[in-house]
Amino acid sequence: MTLTFGVIGAGRIGQLHISYLQTHKDVKIKWISDLNCDKMEEWIAQAGIENKTKDHRDIINDPEVDAIIICSPTDTHVDIIKEASAQGKHIFCEKPISMSLEEAEEAVEAVKKSNIKLQMGFNRRFDKNFKQLHSILSEGELGQIQTLRITSRDPEPPPIEYIKRSGGLFMDMTIHDFDMARYLMQSEIVEVYASGDALVNPEIAEYDDIDTALITLKFENGSIAMIENCRRSVYGYDQRIEILGDNGAIDVGNEQSSTLNYHRVDGIRRDSPPYFFLERYSDAYKVEMNDFIDAILNDTDVLCSIEDGYKAQQIALKCQESLKTNQPQKL
Amino acid sequence: MTLTFGVIGAGRIGQLHISYLQTHKDVKIKWISDLNCDKMEEWIAQAGIENKTKDHRDIINDPEVDAIIICSPTDTHVDIIKEASAQGKHIFCEKPISMSLEEAEEAVEAVKKSNIKLQMGFNRRFDKNFKQLHSILSEGELGQIQTLRITSRDPEPPPIEYIKRSGGLFMDMTIHDFDMARYLMQSEIVEVYASGDALVNPEIAEYDDIDTALITLKFENGSIAMIENCRRSVYGYDQRIEILGDNGAIDVGNEQSSTLNYHRVDGIRRDSPPYFFLERYSDAYKVEMNDFIDAILNDTDVLCSIEDGYKAQQIALKCQESLKTNQPQKL
Amino acid sequence: MTLTFGVIGAGRIGQLHISYLQTHKDVKIKWISDLNCDKMEEWIAQAGIENKTKDHRDIINDPEVDAIIICSPTDTHVDIIKEASAQGKHIFCEKPISMSLEEAEEAVEAVKKSNIKLQMGFNRRFDKNFKQLHSILSEGELGQIQTLRITSRDPEPPPIEYIKRSGGLFMDMTIHDFDMARYLMQSEIVEVYASGDALVNPEIAEYDDIDTALITLKFENGSIAMIENCRRSVYGYDQRIEILGDNGAIDVGNEQSSTLNYHRVDGIRRDSPPYFFLERYSDAYKVEMNDFIDAILNDTDVLCSIEDGYKAQQIALKCQESLKTNQPQKL
Amino acid sequence: MTLTFGVIGAGRIGQLHISYLQTHKDVKIKWISDLNCDKMEEWIAQAGIENKTKDHRDIINDPEVDAIIICSPTDTHVDIIKEASAQGKHIFCEKPISMSLEEAEEAVEAVKKSNIKLQMGFNRRFDKNFKQLHSILSEGELGQIQTLRITSRDPEPPPIEYIKRSGGLFMDMTIHDFDMARYLMQSEIVEVYASGDALVNPEIAEYDDIDTALITLKFENGSIAMIENCRRSVYGYDQRIEILGDNGAIDVGNEQSSTLNYHRVDGIRRDSPPYFFLERYSDAYKVEMNDFIDAILNDTDVLCSIEDGYKAQQIALKCQESLKTNQPQKL
Repeated sequence: MTLTFGVIGAGRIGQLHISYLQTHKDVKIKWISDLNCDKMEEWIAQAGIENKTKDHRDIINDPEVDAIIICSPTDTHVDIIKEASAQGKHIFCEKPISMSLEEAEEAVEAVKKSNIKLQMGFNRRFDKNFKQLHSILSEGELGQIQTLRITSRDPEPPPIEYIKRSGGLFMDMTIHDFDMARYLMQSEIVEVYASGDALVNPEIAEYDDIDTALITLKFENGSIAMIENCRRSVYGYDQRIEILGDNGAIDVGNEQSSTLNYHRVDGIRRDSPPYFFLERYSDAYKVEMNDFIDAILNDTDVLCSIEDGYKAQQIALKCQESLKTNQPQKL
Repeated sequence: MTLTFGVIGAGRIGQLHISYLQTHKDVKIKWISDLNCDKMEEWIAQAGIENKTKDHRDIINDPEVDAIIICSPTDTHVDIIKEASAQGKHIFCEKPISMSLEEAEEAVEAVKKSNIKLQMGFNRRFDKNFKQLHSILSEGELGQIQTLRITSRDPEPPPIEYIKRSGGLFMDMTIHDFDMARYLMQSEIVEVYASGDALVNPEIAEYDDIDTALITLKFENGSIAMIENCRRSVYGYDQRIEILGDNGAIDVGNEQSSTLNYHRVDGIRRDSPPYFFLERYSDAYKVEMNDFIDAILNDTDVLCSIEDGYKAQQIALKCQESLKTNQPQKL
Repeated sequence: MTLTFGVIGAGRIGQLHISYLQTHKDVKIKWISDLNCDKMEEWIAQAGIENKTKDHRDIINDPEVDAIIICSPTDTHVDIIKEASAQGKHIFCEKPISMSLEEAEEAVEAVKKSNIKLQMGFNRRFDKNFKQLHSILSEGELGQIQTLRITSRDPEPPPIEYIKRSGGLFMDMTIHDFDMARYLMQSEIVEVYASGDALVNPEIAEYDDIDTALITLKFENGSIAMIENCRRSVYGYDQRIEILGDNGAIDVGNEQSSTLNYHRVDGIRRDSPPYFFLERYSDAYKVEMNDFIDAILNDTDVLCSIEDGYKAQQIALKCQESLKTNQPQKL
Repeated sequence: MTLTFGVIGAGRIGQLHISYLQTHKDVKIKWISDLNCDKMEEWIAQAGIENKTKDHRDIINDPEVDAIIICSPTDTHVDIIKEASAQGKHIFCEKPISMSLEEAEEAVEAVKKSNIKLQMGFNRRFDKNFKQLHSILSEGELGQIQTLRITSRDPEPPPIEYIKRSGGLFMDMTIHDFDMARYLMQSEIVEVYASGDALVNPEIAEYDDIDTALITLKFENGSIAMIENCRRSVYGYDQRIEILGDNGAIDVGNEQSSTLNYHRVDGIRRDSPPYFFLERYSDAYKVEMNDFIDAILNDTDVLCSIEDGYKAQQIALKCQESLKTNQPQKL
């Protein structure tokens, strides 16, 4: 059976999803919608996509379309989700749902009332290493968990223009780590305490944002966790997790770019980890799309739902409050 | 421009190449030839290949065919190469060319007289790590080389039935290492000394073969090298290289299956390397096919030629002689 | 020149210092004082120490004594420091100075008025790896620091009897990490936020203590830090540090107990790190004693002073307050 | 009980042994003999050794002396062993016994007739990592062994003056690896094949010696082994072992100089291994001396006997023959 897709938003991440969807035997991409689609004619032609539009409603209203991929700016997500779910289209939505919790709730409600699958784009859940860790934890091999630590550092800060519209570090970057923490711990976060500052680029502070953060999380099951974020690690994208339990600890290190070790007068060198998320999670992006397609075809649950998106967003907002007040915040 | 391919031999490795060729935008697989093709109807249909035959000449004589992939048994290689090169078909040929050096020479001559590209299936040259090592060595970063060491261990011995027809350890398994040694050292081997025995499975000795070997190589440039082979390493496929030069050493370790480290009462454990060649070299198989297609489309040199195949075969035969006589053998 | 020493408190750590001091060419141990010294006759004789007493004043009042080592219970430290400094004896004092900040201040004052050297027993400063990190940071190689992370996990919780008299996790265990944080960051801590619980042994909660903690530190220079403590890591003593700066990151891993790697069917195993502090810091204990002796002989500054002891204690107390109030605390 | 020692030869290695023996509670060093002892007065005085002589017979004839340490040039070893064993003195002798196999046999005979302990200075047997490997192999955990590989590379070649008197690479450097191979495999070597050249410093070839070697060993138990030597590895002393058996493989890596990892723009760096044998085997030198003293005091067997010294020497000479003739040599 072939599923007909429409992709809304053809920026970097939209194009990434398209390039994989095109190789999938059960998928046909019929539509692309982007405000700049006039300037993308060549790319769209090369990609072999029949229809382009500036209005995503053309996609949502096409009865042939089975599913949409939302990669447009965050402030469009909720409306698209509401419209598409009303039309019975399955939805893959990049994070976050919205900057506003009230709006996000409306989206959650809309999806609940419909019969569609909605999968959030928390790509890291689909990384083979983190999946393996999740599976070990699900089986209880570590016993009770005492602490969880997530390190997530970008290789370099985005341009200030991006920062301005990003929703802030917690909503833009840490949101992945909030989701990962919930996914691994399999317990809800009940309190957060966030500290941080613009330690890499002071200009970021002018836009009321930070580039470095240490966040303490408390879970319903009593475990505690720490997330560290920084917008810059000059040695590449740093994505590590450590967990300590009754029966031992597991750490998930960075992927290695090569298996070479250089033994020189000045020491032993190996290559830095993959540069950024496109390199690090290239497989995970495929797996998440595959899982979404499987969920539609087999009518099974998605691995990360709109509720997961809502929770991560809620935690991000509580962290913003904690940072502002310098007080722990309960959820 | 689309190249039309025929694949001769649809066993495990033939099917591997087909599965990648099918995703290549410039390739159409028109033919498959296999003696058992009657039993493979379903697979061939699913693979979307139009024509099947038991006689590879149907492929070679089809004027529409641009290139063939030879994955049939070794004793068919030379005839196919001679016929196909006479018809101007480009050839990708799995190793070895032949069990006989005289026959291999005929194949080399046939290719020389033609205008075709022939690429040998020394897949390891296309592994990103070994390529990176090759490139560092080409740039002379290590200075003069003193020693090279290649470790190549299979996870488990093949069935005795396979051993019987394999041509022996040197021709079947070490041939990859002989090619790697030449590729990396960029100098010719001038002498070999081989020792070895059936230390894993004594039954292998009954067929005049061995399962464990240590081989010393001397190169024209004065460097010396060692290859270690074993048909069994219970912890998985072990593919490592070390090289020592004036300015330091480089070692190329095994790929890791995951980035998890388990810290337990009894020590720190990480996962074994990928199980065998299909897992370890899955990318290399794609890259070699890509390079072959590029060489045809752009009329450039292949990365490993029939002469490379001939050399590796010659060294394998000299090692057989060395093992039998317990004497070093000059090339 | 030979220095005459008296050791006050001959428990585990006292005996450790004695065993090293005995091999030092410039040291003679003349006295040992311990309330249980009657039961230790054999050990004292074997150690070749001339005089034993239950009253440490015998040592302090002996004009031949140049320096004392304080390894007695914490509640005796301040009095001994005051008495010994009044008598001009140099002092090596195990941490903490006291459970009370007021008392600790008195000790600091007493030392200030005297002309003696007082070195606190923060043994980790003398570990070669952490010293190397300190030296790299002192030279500014990393540029500005964004984050520091200290992991400090004991292999197993002490007996409840020990817990009761320990002063609590922060004063007993984390105090080393507070000192390490100040030593490495070379800036003062201005705020703390502590979270934690009795997640390993709930009985510990009955004595108003915790066994697992995550602590956020803010520094005068703007950097932020995290300390993780746990009273149990079944895979051995876990002592790691990570620091991120403008020019990269440095992580200091655990020492390895052996250099063996076992490659088996179920993965690759290496030995756990050294079991606990006596194994992990055996060299550091020698170096700290050596440095103390050198400071006396050459009249140079000690590497960690009573002020360092006071600061660490102050931070520990603020963390206790933070934990109790669930509020960040300023220093 | 105190053992009275005399040390014959006060060069670098003699002084190393003296410095440790001086800290041993059961040892008194009464004598030192060295042809240059007149120039060493200050050092001898500082070391607190009562008597010095140019004639080692003064030591051997002193009835108070229990044991001697032979660190004088190789050509003096056999005479000293014969004389000392006749006088009932226990002997610790640096390798090799002699350059001549006939002379070595005389020494073996002399020791056999006496009742003394003679321990050869194969210090690597006393390294904790190699001991651990030996113990695992003794317990048969790996099952039958297929291959053993020993890598032994010095950081830089010795001066040509040293090379001239060294007895050649096999006798001077590889002799340790021959002993290690026998120690670990617990089976005798029955055949050798040696290849090598002066690839680091061509001047070494003028003295009929080599600086790089690859040696194949065959054992009585059927296993095969490879030793690699090079007089130069610019990244430090490289001392590694790998062994492959039925149930897996074990590799023993280099010790690490520090536990720091530097993550920079150009990759991840760690420190080189310890520079040379004095740093790498500092503990092993103590353990071997300790074991020798224990063997005397408890009348137990030494861990490496004069027969072990003889065997290693015999293998070295066979390798010289193999290199000269380019033929495998049987033992």
